[in-house]
Amino acid sequence: MRNKRDVYLDDRPWEEALEGLLKHLEAKGTLQPANPELIAVEEALGRVTAAPIFAANSSPHYNASAMDGIAVDSALTFGASDAEPRQIKLGERAQVVDTGDPLPPGCDAVIMIEDIHFVEDDVFEITSAASPWQHVRAIGEDLVATEMILPANHTIRPVDIGGILAGGIGKIKVYSRPRVALLPTGTELVQPGTELKPGDIIEYNTRVLGAMVKTWGGEPIRRAITVDDWDKLKEAVCTAVEEADMVVINAGSSAGREDFTAQLIRELGTVLTHGAAIKPGKPVILGEVKGKPVIGIPGYPVSAALTMEIFVRPIIYRKLGSVPPEPEYAEAIISRKMPSPMGVEEFIRVKLGQVGEKIVATPISRGAGIIMSLVRADGMLRYQDFPRDIGPGKL
Amino acid sequence: MRNKRDVYLDDRPWEEALEGLLKHLEAKGTLQPANPELIAVEEALGRVTAAPIFAANSSPHYNASAMDGIAVDSALTFGASDAEPRQIKLGERAQVVDTGDPLPPGCDAVIMIEDIHFVEDDVFEITSAASPWQHVRAIGEDLVATEMILPANHTIRPVDIGGILAGGIGKIKVYSRPRVALLPTGTELVQPGTELKPGDIIEYNTRVLGAMVKTWGGEPIRRAITVDDWDKLKEAVCTAVEEADMVVINAGSSAGREDFTAQLIRELGTVLTHGAAIKPGKPVILGEVKGKPVIGIPGYPVSAALTMEIFVRPIIYRKLGSVPPEPEYAEAIISRKMPSPMGVEEFIRVKLGQVGEKIVATPISRGAGIIMSLVRADGMLRYQDFPRDIGPGKL
Repeated sequence: MRNKRDVYLDDRPWEEALEGLLKHLEAKGTLQPANPELIAVEEALGRVTAAPIFAANSSPHYNASAMDGIAVDSALTFGASDAEPRQIKLGERAQVVDTGDPLPPGCDAVIMIEDIHFVEDDVFEITSAASPWQHVRAIGEDLVATEMILPANHTIRPVDIGGILAGGIGKIKVYSRPRVALLPTGTELVQPGTELKPGDIIEYNTRVLGAMVKTWGGEPIRRAITVDDWDKLKEAVCTAVEEADMVVINAGSSAGREDFTAQLIRELGTVLTHGAAIKPGKPVILGEVKGKPVIGIPGYPVSAALTMEIFVRPIIYRKLGSVPPEPEYAEAIISRKMPSPMGVEEFIRVKLGQVGEKIVATPISRGAGIIMSLVRADGMLRYQDFPRDIGPGKL
Repeated sequence: MRNKRDVYLDDRPWEEALEGLLKHLEAKGTLQPANPELIAVEEALGRVTAAPIFAANSSPHYNASAMDGIAVDSALTFGASDAEPRQIKLGERAQVVDTGDPLPPGCDAVIMIEDIHFVEDDVFEITSAASPWQHVRAIGEDLVATEMILPANHTIRPVDIGGILAGGIGKIKVYSRPRVALLPTGTELVQPGTELKPGDIIEYNTRVLGAMVKTWGGEPIRRAITVDDWDKLKEAVCTAVEEADMVVINAGSSAGREDFTAQLIRELGTVLTHGAAIKPGKPVILGEVKGKPVIGIPGYPVSAALTMEIFVRPIIYRKLGSVPPEPEYAEAIISRKMPSPMGVEEFIRVKLGQVGEKIVATPISRGAGIIMSLVRADGMLRYQDFPRDIGPGKL
């Protein structure tokens, strides 16, 4: 056992560790989006465009009545007024139309039904002239054929689906969802629903991490539990590297007896960082095998969620050709003094409450093993943003 | 044709119209969430809890080592110091443990591996005492059996999945996704991909509305196009009312020749509002058939998207037992004077740009038929929030 303890964890600032990983992957050419796929526009909600989209037809693709009423040759109406109402007979140059109907040949304007008074079955009267092209939606008013509807790297919203279909496009190229293999490891892990014995740990981390991956636009692939066995873990990692775009190993990232994840990644590829100056989450491993990111995520649930957010989320968004949304910030007063660890960035979960005019942030339990601290939290407080030991701070 | 024009649209403020609809549905008992379903926790991301969730087991469910190291009977260590190091032999009251291992009987504390120095294969030395329960995760530290993990009406996030599984719960009750039938109507409509003739309109509205429904947590059911025929539309509406929780008819909501949606809803049930004082979107119909909301959404794409957002979104969230997220607001200067219509609330699409210290809002085309105005918009400007005709205003 003693000779297994010669593992010393780094203490790198997380920004530096993340940047190192991203640069390494960029140099390998595996950080950019890959494998665009052609999908039906109707299935594209939330996907990211892999190329600009151009209109195949104009919209409207014909001159259209913009109102229910009568399409006329405006020349027929010139001079009409209250004093000199004009009577017009329905015919080629005065035809009843509904909104959206094509403007009949010989007509160049539409008179709203509200402005029309029928004096006979086929004769109506107006008291003002129609100006040419009034109440007409001209060809291309919305989109002109060949016009760019959307640029590349755009995340499709509901209205975008309308714009693309209006332009006559049925299929579009989007980036594939990055496939993230999630490997739960540990002899102590049991699946949810198992009768629990002392020492059993319910394997829920990869469920949480998988839901995160989904939220960010990736495709989680949850694998079977691997026991603490070098050969089995090696096989599991090799298979995952073949099948996925990214591999997340949970846990086996600290320096304990059976924690050989770092050693394994080093054998198969490169370990860029083992240990970041964050709390919780310190023993994270950032590595690369065959050009693909292989990340060792610590086993404690809060550490797992936090390191996933810090190190895996940016890679998923980069591989999606997209940018992660900014977190929301709130100004708040801290409800009590918090001593802060030196040289480590601690992510404190807090509850927020409105007290009078101010928002008060109350720290929740700091234990890395307390998943309920994340469930109960309204936000995360970051120490570095305010003078140490003293509130008020920023969330 | 003339006798079909006796339809006059209301001019109700939208807040009043919406409130009237919600109150009517509440009185019918059909606004609250219905039909909770039991689903696997792992499938519950984004769903809304229909009942509070309580822990079935504690977490941890045994006293666990919180560190890799040696579990000891702390009594063995009392008095150890740099001056008087203590040597301890491995045995029943001093056993090697990894993080997560159960605390062996007879032990009540864990010494971190970093604080241990082996002097023989089975004898180690320490230079400080272990306090009872140090580095031990006590039973229930995270969750105590029977503790409430989540309340009802909570939207499940990734970390919640962890909390629920940690508490030994595998299935939870969530509210069913409200099923929203979307009925495209109009003889002029053609499916995307059809060779276009003048007068054809590509039916993309229900695709946009469907994607909106999905975004809000509902389940869209897009139906076939119904031509402008009373009996066919009646049949389509009756079937939809049977099958869905809510029916959206698009379009046929204005007062044109073939616009008998309001008349049909009136025959089958109740029309609460036909016409709201908004632009675009005025001819919206808010109705109810057999206790279910039946909404007539105008045909112009911007009107359709806007009225869907104003009138259907709140119903979906109410039926989900949830609350719609607040829109984001930005303070901005309007780039040019905008005359505002009297007595009508106009929703102007704007692009936003940073100019020096200020955000400038530039209005985009106001046409209700211009879906690209929504695609290009960064936000929506509401007239009522600032003195008429004069900027700066609020977005």
